[in-house]
Amino acid sequence: MSESSDDAETTDEIMRATYRALFQHGYSATTISKIADEFDKSKSLIYYHYEDKEELLGAFLEYLLDQLESDLAASDGEDPKSHLLEVVDLLLPSELEDERFTFLRALLELRAQAPYHESYREQFERSDELVVSLLVDAIEWGIEEDVFRAVNSREVAEFVYSTAYGAIERGVTVDDPSVLHENRGYIESYLEATLFKYS
Amino acid sequence: MSESSDDAETTDEIMRATYRALFQHGYSATTISKIADEFDKSKSLIYYHYEDKEELLGAFLEYLLDQLESDLAASDGEDPKSHLLEVVDLLLPSELEDERFTFLRALLELRAQAPYHESYREQFERSDELVVSLLVDAIEWGIEEDVFRAVNSREVAEFVYSTAYGAIERGVTVDDPSVLHENRGYIESYLEATLFKYS
Repeated sequence: MSESSDDAETTDEIMRATYRALFQHGYSATTISKIADEFDKSKSLIYYHYEDKEELLGAFLEYLLDQLESDLAASDGEDPKSHLLEVVDLLLPSELEDERFTFLRALLELRAQAPYHESYREQFERSDELVVSLLVDAIEWGIEEDVFRAVNSREVAEFVYSTAYGAIERGVTVDDPSVLHENRGYIESYLEATLFKYS
Repeated sequence: MSESSDDAETTDEIMRATYRALFQHGYSATTISKIADEFDKSKSLIYYHYEDKEELLGAFLEYLLDQLESDLAASDGEDPKSHLLEVVDLLLPSELEDERFTFLRALLELRAQAPYHESYREQFERSDELVVSLLVDAIEWGIEEDVFRAVNSREVAEFVYSTAYGAIERGVTVDDPSVLHENRGYIESYLEATLFKYS
């Protein structure tokens, strides 16, 4: 095995350890030591790769976002409507697992720290652009295929993304998953009324 | 002057000092000492009223919410449409001052900590309920007056609130006020299309 694939494996293990630490302790209480507790190898190996918590967490956000990117690329629905709903589903699933709900707490803590850490801010900017552009593409596909109304695709995409984000923010922080579930339904009603054509 | 009005004045001064400390340092970096730096009287007076940062910040959220409540009560528009837009304006102003934008950073940090602090969570739950119920009342007034369509008022209110919250969360954390401004426009377009009747 080459040194670089060893390195990639170590990075992957550090990222999984970071996920487990964030999941258990939240962002504020997560330290490099707590990440090391979740990591099978030595703590010094973490410091060999990352200078401090900020650098590690910035890399972790990039890792998450790469995963989201490949999930989104894989969601290639057969028609515009099912494709669009798959993208919405990745954002705000109709059924949210407990584990993901708990993890979203840590992600919102990280996002709340973005004004103070450029490395976090860059990753959230990148993820916002990615999701909005995927929504725009899905909407434009439907307009071309004449199954969606000729709306302003960017406006609808931004609106759906903000609503989904707000629902996550509201529900996760007051520990009420029903907010996410209900808002998912409202987004579908909105798309039915605004976007979908029926012949 | 009675002791209780002295007390009320001291509380008010502590709250204003807390606002200034949060505005300058954000939530994570705000300590009782930093609040004391913004307070004309002694630090021990702060500890006389509040045991720790969590208790003080819980009281601060309650203070903010009381202010929001009286602002909302005062926004008694002449007709349902202008009243509804006034409530939306308190939530997501079409022109946001720099000071408020910066302060929203600290508020989102506080909200992100709500899963770990019950006193914060209670205040955010109360504010969510307050805003949604005011939006519901405004919508139902318009339906009664036959100037709004007979929509599901709760659904529209929840949808508008989530969109506004998501726009704030997205824009504030990546330091881009235009996200708030644009989403404010999208909410108005949505209300025009869904709710407002024209004769």
